[in-house]
Amino acid sequence: MIGELIGERVIIKGKDADKLSSRFYGKRENGILYLSLVEAAYLIENKKLDINLKFDDFIKKASKKIDRFVTKYNVYKDMKNRGYLLKTALKYGADFRVYEKGAIPGKQHSKWILFAVSENEGFIWQKFAAMVRVAHSVKKNLMIGVVDDEGDVTYYETSWIKP
Amino acid sequence: MIGELIGERVIIKGKDADKLSSRFYGKRENGILYLSLVEAAYLIENKKLDINLKFDDFIKKASKKIDRFVTKYNVYKDMKNRGYLLKTALKYGADFRVYEKGAIPGKQHSKWILFAVSENEGFIWQKFAAMVRVAHSVKKNLMIGVVDDEGDVTYYETSWIKP
Amino acid sequence: MIGELIGERVIIKGKDADKLSSRFYGKRENGILYLSLVEAAYLIENKKLDINLKFDDFIKKASKKIDRFVTKYNVYKDMKNRGYLLKTALKYGADFRVYEKGAIPGKQHSKWILFAVSENEGFIWQKFAAMVRVAHSVKKNLMIGVVDDEGDVTYYETSWIKP
Amino acid sequence: MIGELIGERVIIKGKDADKLSSRFYGKRENGILYLSLVEAAYLIENKKLDINLKFDDFIKKASKKIDRFVTKYNVYKDMKNRGYLLKTALKYGADFRVYEKGAIPGKQHSKWILFAVSENEGFIWQKFAAMVRVAHSVKKNLMIGVVDDEGDVTYYETSWIKP
Repeated sequence: MIGELIGERVIIKGKDADKLSSRFYGKRENGILYLSLVEAAYLIENKKLDINLKFDDFIKKASKKIDRFVTKYNVYKDMKNRGYLLKTALKYGADFRVYEKGAIPGKQHSKWILFAVSENEGFIWQKFAAMVRVAHSVKKNLMIGVVDDEGDVTYYETSWIKP
Repeated sequence: MIGELIGERVIIKGKDADKLSSRFYGKRENGILYLSLVEAAYLIENKKLDINLKFDDFIKKASKKIDRFVTKYNVYKDMKNRGYLLKTALKYGADFRVYEKGAIPGKQHSKWILFAVSENEGFIWQKFAAMVRVAHSVKKNLMIGVVDDEGDVTYYETSWIKP
Repeated sequence: MIGELIGERVIIKGKDADKLSSRFYGKRENGILYLSLVEAAYLIENKKLDINLKFDDFIKKASKKIDRFVTKYNVYKDMKNRGYLLKTALKYGADFRVYEKGAIPGKQHSKWILFAVSENEGFIWQKFAAMVRVAHSVKKNLMIGVVDDEGDVTYYETSWIKP
Repeated sequence: MIGELIGERVIIKGKDADKLSSRFYGKRENGILYLSLVEAAYLIENKKLDINLKFDDFIKKASKKIDRFVTKYNVYKDMKNRGYLLKTALKYGADFRVYEKGAIPGKQHSKWILFAVSENEGFIWQKFAAMVRVAHSVKKNLMIGVVDDEGDVTYYETSWIKP
């Protein structure tokens, strides 16, 4: 499968686009599939996509284009390896939408909004409150994936309560 | 009801001690009831206790003795007004143990461990992970009370998940 | 048993001095027994000593004379109630020396040096290191008694290690 | 040995990745080894890794990415020099897991949870109580490494006791 890195997307055409699209990767418009760099990294690392760039060179390039790319990729990869289907959640101001296993994007709604953070990242509680508010306003659960220094991810579910 | 501020405690005697003790305030020993400054502040603000000090002056004094006093007091007061019973949670490295409505400390276990934080306060995710870990290890739910600039509190419940 | 509050000591004379001294309270000189205010408070609260002052008035007076009196007294009382024998540790720059159960001061050495702190007290690690160094230099174990808002005490043992 | 700094990781490839991985550095995935910045700093300072950046400049960069980086690195380096194997401890809300000499991560459990602190850093006893609680709940010993102004580390072991 051949792709091309253009700006902050990897572009796939033809039958490959059909194939990836049927597995819910990327966004399709006019026969062209636009992958996010996180999706592309996952496919490249798993030898399912070739964009004429070694994996680590791709990671390097992506890190320059996307803020906190490695942290986001760590969480994306970990969740994919656990069998979940993830889509980006830019319009929610979050990192990913996560679907329950077996759910079909477009038919079912995603269950979680997922933020990827690094264990060493500084935060303020106001920002934490904003994360929860975002998830709550779209009636989804909030999942936070905290990436440690070794790239392992620990997950937390948080909800707004009225005690 | 008359009390006296001594060090980090307010002392109550006689029938007043009996009365407050039966409502699970403070700690009773040899006929004397020892209130924490958070408990005392709550009773003073509600005109149920007089220690010969105006509420504002009491808060000022307490803030010098107790780290993050105002944040803790805001959360304590809000939860009390909602009808909950709170006790300290030093052993858990948290701010309060919270009992379900109707539960009796000593007979029932507390359901939540509650941390009181200010929305402007910084934290790192490692600290967040530690909060969750502590609650998880003692089989209690973790509640975080975030106090905003106006003293209002928003509550969040967080748990460790393995997706 | 009658005593008299003089400065930072309570003075006991005659047979009462003998009796208390045989139970390792205070310091005896020329037939007079000098109790620390913490020791006196314990005896007063347990109705074994009368200095013509109600217990809570005594606590109030003592708090003005002795820094962090209530915190120290909480720890002293808790350890006494657990059956330990405590002596002051002023010369070690600590709060108390603690003897193993059954040990006799003067014949045996105390096993621990005990610091009493309040859960809300601010500290720096340098001061923590100093505590350990003091205990280590006199070949005793370090015990830290942390008093929570309800007056309950949690104990920690700390030692210097060379990993 | 050549590596490349990408985000909060240093990436190593090929035989070098094999070599470091067999000595329990970093995390290996699909032939690529991901080192934490603390691990990378240690290898760079010991001239075992070259990422085309002087050690001082690397430390400066890492300090911007990682909270309390220098304190953590001082403790990591000191323990490595003593022959210990360390891994991160996010799940415990601590800085490092420390394995007994000769123990193999994955096969044996770590013995200690290690917090790295600076001697000038403030803390409250509630936080100290939380550290002990976390270690106790996972049946590990608590080690605190206090870094002084010259970067030297003194170690303390602390446990919760019921006297």
